[in-house]
Amino acid sequence: MGGDFAPRVVVEGALDAAQQQGVEILLIGPEKILKKEIERLDFRGANVTLVDAPETISMGEGLISLRRKNRSSIFIGAELVKKKEAEALVSMGNTAAVTYISKKVMGSLEGIEKPGLALLIPTLKGVSLLIDVGASANCTPEHLMQFAVMGKIFMEVALKRPNPTIALMSIGEEKTKGNELTLETYKRLEASPLNFIGNIEGKDIYSGAAEVIVSDGFTGNVALKVSEGVVETMLTMARREITRNLLAKLGFLLLKHHLKKIYKKIDYSEYGGAHLLGVNGICIIGHGRSNQKAVKNAIKMGKEVIAEHLQERIQEGWLRFARANKGVVA
Amino acid sequence: MGGDFAPRVVVEGALDAAQQQGVEILLIGPEKILKKEIERLDFRGANVTLVDAPETISMGEGLISLRRKNRSSIFIGAELVKKKEAEALVSMGNTAAVTYISKKVMGSLEGIEKPGLALLIPTLKGVSLLIDVGASANCTPEHLMQFAVMGKIFMEVALKRPNPTIALMSIGEEKTKGNELTLETYKRLEASPLNFIGNIEGKDIYSGAAEVIVSDGFTGNVALKVSEGVVETMLTMARREITRNLLAKLGFLLLKHHLKKIYKKIDYSEYGGAHLLGVNGICIIGHGRSNQKAVKNAIKMGKEVIAEHLQERIQEGWLRFARANKGVVA
Repeated sequence: MGGDFAPRVVVEGALDAAQQQGVEILLIGPEKILKKEIERLDFRGANVTLVDAPETISMGEGLISLRRKNRSSIFIGAELVKKKEAEALVSMGNTAAVTYISKKVMGSLEGIEKPGLALLIPTLKGVSLLIDVGASANCTPEHLMQFAVMGKIFMEVALKRPNPTIALMSIGEEKTKGNELTLETYKRLEASPLNFIGNIEGKDIYSGAAEVIVSDGFTGNVALKVSEGVVETMLTMARREITRNLLAKLGFLLLKHHLKKIYKKIDYSEYGGAHLLGVNGICIIGHGRSNQKAVKNAIKMGKEVIAEHLQERIQEGWLRFARANKGVVA
Repeated sequence: MGGDFAPRVVVEGALDAAQQQGVEILLIGPEKILKKEIERLDFRGANVTLVDAPETISMGEGLISLRRKNRSSIFIGAELVKKKEAEALVSMGNTAAVTYISKKVMGSLEGIEKPGLALLIPTLKGVSLLIDVGASANCTPEHLMQFAVMGKIFMEVALKRPNPTIALMSIGEEKTKGNELTLETYKRLEASPLNFIGNIEGKDIYSGAAEVIVSDGFTGNVALKVSEGVVETMLTMARREITRNLLAKLGFLLLKHHLKKIYKKIDYSEYGGAHLLGVNGICIIGHGRSNQKAVKNAIKMGKEVIAEHLQERIQEGWLRFARANKGVVA
């Protein structure tokens, strides 16, 4: 039921995944609504089961009312993962709600205090991982170290990039620039065996200068949403400017195909969703504006990381790292 | 001596200002270098005086070495303002150095604990003010309240916008979304007589939804630099894509004039620089990449806010606000 275009695009994306990827889908939501969605689609050959979840969670819902809703689709989905009746939870819903419920129901990985939402972002060199983009707004250096290690393992497992470069989001490249949180985290990252390349400024995150960018969830979320805002604002300005002039319109037509290629590169639906790392189960959260393709791709990413045993490798990797680097993790 | 193209563009911009705006310029820097710059330009009719400052400060210079450099151009400029021999300090240099030295030498306005760097940003509706974009990386709710009031007064004085709307940069529109700092600040802003319209997400800062956007200096700086990064990345991607194809090149030529108009709207050199509010003297910090026009416009902004008694009005306005709203300022 999550996302701006739910349940329609979620059901359609899930159906695509079931038909094309050979995965079994448990579709969770109010039964009546789901049945109606399913009736208008062709589910032949798709392994899809409906799971009734009568309660829904809105985008603005606070934690207090969330606690009482244990029959929402997110809650029931998290329970299915917890009971190992599902291998991954995929949601396009309220990030705060999915994070809170997943952590509460699935629990955390051993040694991980807060989950980090890890998102692949397009860069001039390919993709990088930004962690955390909004799961944990209040962080300590310990949390950022956990994000760094989880991000590293994610890149190794999901993207087969061994020992990725890691940078810390800050406000200057120099070690002395930043806030209290980043100054202390810098020291720890520097003293660790991670492939730490220093601070990265906001202007460089899309250049591909670092493969993993570590940030608290507040800053990471602002960075991500500012990026969306800039792209949208530029497109709106361009649209206003272009529609005023015939030659400009022609110019735009000639460019359109190429601009689409660029748009495809920066389109989040290509990447599916963000991985909530640190909870005890695979959990993927898609953009609220996810379309059918984004839903399908989010499920595909889930399938891939399950096959690569992402959870087990993050758990083992963190425990090994923490044992060997006691000075920098606590 | 500050900025990527100093001293050339700084001297040229200052000369333009002296000739076109009727201001008196004290040009501060190593005398030999400045003399050489001046020799190649036509300074007839310009009221420009050289002030020797033999020491220079690099972009990466830490605070420890800054403390010893009391013959740098920033230090001497701040002293001239302090002694009322100059009415404003304009620098394109290291933001951290200008902030630190200005605060140390000029002192703070009464009741203001930390300076906030206030920058006019282009939006779909005109311009908004983002404060702080990098002067104070570690903030408390008290500091953000001071930024809010100073930002409000700046908009009233410099842009003649009475009682501007004020928003708090956060990670969700709802009151319950944010980090510890913003949750507490939200309550105070809400309880104050300011024209507070709630949280603003990164994606909306360029829509013009709020006239003043309040943020701690770390987040504000990341937001600003991410914006630069997104624009640059999109332009680079577009360039790569377009140069591959002849029709696309033609399309670009037809659009070029219109894209330039958009670029002009988002070009920081139109706005000159950011105002360091809260120190006891006018201080304007330009972008490191400032060109001649940016320098000239920064000086023009200085002249304008001097004429409007910005400093006095911020000082009076803050004291009045603090007296009337004791519950929300401390």
